[in-house]
Amino acid sequence: MLNFNFCAPTNFHFGRGVEMKAGEIIASMGGKKALVHYGGGSVIRSGLLGRILETLDAAGVAHIELGGVQPNPRASLVYKAIDLCRKENVDFILAVGGGSVIDSAKAISVGIPYEGDFWDFHCGKAKAKERLPLGVILTLAAAGSEGSSSCVITQEEGNLKRGSSSDLNRPTFALLNPELTMTLPPYQTACGATDMLAHVMERYFTNTDGVDLTDRLCEAVMTSIIEAAPIAMKDPANYDARAQLMWAGMLAHNNSLGIGREQDWASHQIEHELSALYDVAHGAGLAVVFPAWMRYQLEVNPMRFAQFAVRVWGCSMDFQHPERTALQGIERFEQFLRSLGMPTTFAELGAKEEDIPYMAAKCKRNNGDKLGFFRPLDTKMIEDVLRLAVR
Amino acid sequence: MLNFNFCAPTNFHFGRGVEMKAGEIIASMGGKKALVHYGGGSVIRSGLLGRILETLDAAGVAHIELGGVQPNPRASLVYKAIDLCRKENVDFILAVGGGSVIDSAKAISVGIPYEGDFWDFHCGKAKAKERLPLGVILTLAAAGSEGSSSCVITQEEGNLKRGSSSDLNRPTFALLNPELTMTLPPYQTACGATDMLAHVMERYFTNTDGVDLTDRLCEAVMTSIIEAAPIAMKDPANYDARAQLMWAGMLAHNNSLGIGREQDWASHQIEHELSALYDVAHGAGLAVVFPAWMRYQLEVNPMRFAQFAVRVWGCSMDFQHPERTALQGIERFEQFLRSLGMPTTFAELGAKEEDIPYMAAKCKRNNGDKLGFFRPLDTKMIEDVLRLAVR
Repeated sequence: MLNFNFCAPTNFHFGRGVEMKAGEIIASMGGKKALVHYGGGSVIRSGLLGRILETLDAAGVAHIELGGVQPNPRASLVYKAIDLCRKENVDFILAVGGGSVIDSAKAISVGIPYEGDFWDFHCGKAKAKERLPLGVILTLAAAGSEGSSSCVITQEEGNLKRGSSSDLNRPTFALLNPELTMTLPPYQTACGATDMLAHVMERYFTNTDGVDLTDRLCEAVMTSIIEAAPIAMKDPANYDARAQLMWAGMLAHNNSLGIGREQDWASHQIEHELSALYDVAHGAGLAVVFPAWMRYQLEVNPMRFAQFAVRVWGCSMDFQHPERTALQGIERFEQFLRSLGMPTTFAELGAKEEDIPYMAAKCKRNNGDKLGFFRPLDTKMIEDVLRLAVR
Repeated sequence: MLNFNFCAPTNFHFGRGVEMKAGEIIASMGGKKALVHYGGGSVIRSGLLGRILETLDAAGVAHIELGGVQPNPRASLVYKAIDLCRKENVDFILAVGGGSVIDSAKAISVGIPYEGDFWDFHCGKAKAKERLPLGVILTLAAAGSEGSSSCVITQEEGNLKRGSSSDLNRPTFALLNPELTMTLPPYQTACGATDMLAHVMERYFTNTDGVDLTDRLCEAVMTSIIEAAPIAMKDPANYDARAQLMWAGMLAHNNSLGIGREQDWASHQIEHELSALYDVAHGAGLAVVFPAWMRYQLEVNPMRFAQFAVRVWGCSMDFQHPERTALQGIERFEQFLRSLGMPTTFAELGAKEEDIPYMAAKCKRNNGDKLGFFRPLDTKMIEDVLRLAVR
């Protein structure tokens, strides 16, 4: 096990009705005026935004609203929000939505007290030292931004998608009501579950020794996602399934499962090229890339893939031929993705084989010489991974 | 799943050498003068205390020392420390030791800024509203106090052992170096592992539905403890085994495994009567009480015990007779405890059958009418549980 630092101070309130605590919590922390940040009109139409604003009013917290956050949240909206909040003397940020809205709100909360350009935090020029307190009300279980230290923003100029990682990105409080995710369509539920699984797997596939405890925690979270996702798709109002997915999504990315080990993250970086080129959902792109990455990497450490097969997918261990068990685990994973209606091939995603060299080269440019840690990939190897998804 | 609140803001630094960060961290947080709190002379003899004081000196943090914390930490020492810290204008508390030292330090840290008697927090008269920042350097993996919200102190007058629970009891930072536990004798390592398992099991045996994710997290932590404990006993300097136990001990009691479910805690309360009467180690007492509690409670929910047997102990499920599988799990647990050299019977512990009515009556007095939640116990039932341990 490697040395590590772990600090996840977000105050989570989980369960039915917890979104109604927003005003009271902000007021108890001394908040006088909040920016309520959201995405499209669904939070307005569902009445959620109205209910939340009422709790702010009741608690004597003034507020302004700014919607319009898009998937892959844009820097332009962050700049606009920072200007607005400074002018309006906002002292609290409240995000209502999924990962994109929360990431946008994170960038705003560290950007307001910073004298320079918030983008400095995303291109490595500076580290955030303070922020406005940030509350989040989650409406989509997937990205895990509600508990994570990461914040990904896209700068339109140059189409640069860059992440910043800092414990200051971890929300001050998070209100997680599984009921708010019951209206999510099955396809988005499936994309969310795939994204969560991928967050765990990027950490699970490691060469670091002596990480049995976090291995088992990873397996616990994956198993629960695998059990809950089909239930939530067939029975969208199943509270317990929605609750498992919501808490699993947070655990999958707050790094409690990744401490003390080398992590990979190549599949995520490769997927970024797919979603950039074809405008597909992140979860759908991961469903295509991850099994291909696994087939490519199996030979590096067959026993780790066999462990995945036995402990997560319930395969019987073939002690004579562990690599068969390893392969069976990958096949079960693919079958599961297909059972959720996820694409697992280039064709199903609408991706084209002839674009592979372009995407691999761009991925290399964005990530330096070698990609990932399990077995680092160069451009040629990224191409080989992608070709395994062409079927 | 029940609604819950979870906030665990402790900043953990884990790994080789992390105790040497103490001075630097305290200085970075503005600490000027620390109380360094510890137990017996072992931290002096091992040179650990000296090394830590050097880091404080190097960082320009003044310090005073107060040792002498005993197992079942005493209120008298807490009062003494509070007076001393106020007189000396201490602004930071640093605990070096195991659960007793950390609990004593917790009581001191909330007691200093409080105008009344710190005991108010332990007898329900008041809730702590502020505290001095508290750092801990852990030397014993067992109680989980380094990440928990609980603090148990014994008031000598009346021999009252009372806990207080508050998020203000969660340490500000914790330095966890598994190497510091390598000198621990096998018996204490075993007591620590038993205590951790018990912390998980008090949460695991529940009647709350829809808690599959946390069930699996509990099973992951228990399985890792079961694997690591015998290794650490046979090979005390095995870093990875010590590391698994150290992080597992924290997870077992920071309540990440207990969220959203009714918890039991009857075994802990019954054990307190054993350790009070016979002055036995907490872990040893738990090794006697818990299997007896399990045998007594099996009939309440055989399928939950069967799940424990199959998932934690690798028993084969007897689908015709689940209660046989359930019983087999309890037997495996007992065998495991015996393999660690733990007592599992009254005789082995040096406890006496004729004391049972006295202990049961005292336990009832200390805990009100009913004890626990899985199946609440009255005095007669507590006696029945204890009698199952007389063999």
